[in-house]
Amino acid sequence: MKLVRYGNPGKEKPGLIDDNGQLRDLSAVVKDLGPDQLGDAALAKLRKIKTDKLPLVRGKPRFGSPVANVGKFIAIGLNYADHAAESGLPVPKEPVVFMKATSCIQGPNDPVMLPKNSVKSDWEVELGVVIGTRARYVSQKEALDYVAGYCVINDVSEREYQIERGGTWDKGKGCDTFGPLGPWLVTRDEVPQPQKLAMWLDLNGKRVQTGNTKTMIFSVAKLVSYVSQFMTLMPGDVITTGTPPGVGLGMKPPMFLKKGDVMTLGIEGLGEQRQDVVAFKR
Amino acid sequence: MKLVRYGNPGKEKPGLIDDNGQLRDLSAVVKDLGPDQLGDAALAKLRKIKTDKLPLVRGKPRFGSPVANVGKFIAIGLNYADHAAESGLPVPKEPVVFMKATSCIQGPNDPVMLPKNSVKSDWEVELGVVIGTRARYVSQKEALDYVAGYCVINDVSEREYQIERGGTWDKGKGCDTFGPLGPWLVTRDEVPQPQKLAMWLDLNGKRVQTGNTKTMIFSVAKLVSYVSQFMTLMPGDVITTGTPPGVGLGMKPPMFLKKGDVMTLGIEGLGEQRQDVVAFKR
Repeated sequence: MKLVRYGNPGKEKPGLIDDNGQLRDLSAVVKDLGPDQLGDAALAKLRKIKTDKLPLVRGKPRFGSPVANVGKFIAIGLNYADHAAESGLPVPKEPVVFMKATSCIQGPNDPVMLPKNSVKSDWEVELGVVIGTRARYVSQKEALDYVAGYCVINDVSEREYQIERGGTWDKGKGCDTFGPLGPWLVTRDEVPQPQKLAMWLDLNGKRVQTGNTKTMIFSVAKLVSYVSQFMTLMPGDVITTGTPPGVGLGMKPPMFLKKGDVMTLGIEGLGEQRQDVVAFKR
Repeated sequence: MKLVRYGNPGKEKPGLIDDNGQLRDLSAVVKDLGPDQLGDAALAKLRKIKTDKLPLVRGKPRFGSPVANVGKFIAIGLNYADHAAESGLPVPKEPVVFMKATSCIQGPNDPVMLPKNSVKSDWEVELGVVIGTRARYVSQKEALDYVAGYCVINDVSEREYQIERGGTWDKGKGCDTFGPLGPWLVTRDEVPQPQKLAMWLDLNGKRVQTGNTKTMIFSVAKLVSYVSQFMTLMPGDVITTGTPPGVGLGMKPPMFLKKGDVMTLGIEGLGEQRQDVVAFKR
């Protein structure tokens, strides 16, 4: 299933994209698409619905994040060998874990706002993993059983805040609007091979990132297992799994986002995002 | 007001401690003590209640975290000059920000569980700041207006995970049970001088940490203002503001928690916590 949340910010309704690519309203079936709706039993119930009986949604509503009430927004750094190289950093021996503020989560096509006085905001197309079932010290072999599904994430990053302001990366990763999720939460049954997904990001129509999840250093299964050794993963938690080469920081000379830029990005089977970059406003 | 949440885990009810130190039930007045109940208007309403009309709670129920549904659990590192010295790290030029997983939050007297194979778990008594009103790019001068109140926090930390496992500190800070909060959320009107609070932590009855918020490098007002430049602080977010000297990592030789240890800790006017240290269990 391709699950979505659509409507105005804060008032999103649950929906799904049917086999013909049409948006259907799910709000008579589930209240929202959050922690309580992402477990295997809840998803199995949704899967039994005859989608052609669901109301069609007219027009082109905005999409919100396809997951509501994300508890933890966990991120993995330097998870593609080529990206580690362009960042001038060694390939990590074990996954680099940091966190994005949940308050940065937004819809896939909402504008990305440069922080006040920001001069080093950057893009990162990433595979997002949405947890469906509480996971604590799970093995790599069973790890994917705890996943509800996958989505596209732009792990927008302010490099000065991330690297030059002391402390951990968290400072440059959680600014408002820095977490576009979606458009769809694609349930894991429709993503049988999460390590074979092509991904890309265009800046103003020019391809800057091209990658494939097959070149991840640590697989999705490894990451879910690994993170679950340090903290319990809860339904609705999201792990964003690192970015392939082609970020602005790695260019010579480095290039960063400016007002008026347009980012378009996507992952095979998971849909596309488009964000206008806008100036800071109070 | 001293606000509390009491009862079994996941089923806590809101309450308050009256002027005689008695626990009164608030559940007929508010549903819970979370983001929607922490703004100035909501707290003013609670303050008008005649506490002697509220039902007395009999017995000695467990306390949960006094704040429900914490969205972000933000932490400040090395915020006491002496603690930076004992950690062998320079005094930071600006606040060090990291994040604790919200899934580690628990009641003030719940046992602290050593993670699987953990050998370097450590204690840190800290002043917790609970946000009451959405705060975004707020000035230091106005910052405390956005605070609902204060509480005691034990920022329990696994030093191997934090320092020796690559990546950011987040890995060693968010293990299950590593975030005891409470017992009380003391509203800010009752904490007129947050930079003059004595604090302490005893390990097995022996004083190991003695400090006072007056020796913070960055004040609470500075921290709220500073963090709000990087991410929007939401009602119910918690900032734990760093620990004074006396942690196990700083001892010569270093000393870490083991099964059977007891931590007791407190901050002037904010109450006390007591945690039994227990072995890992699945």
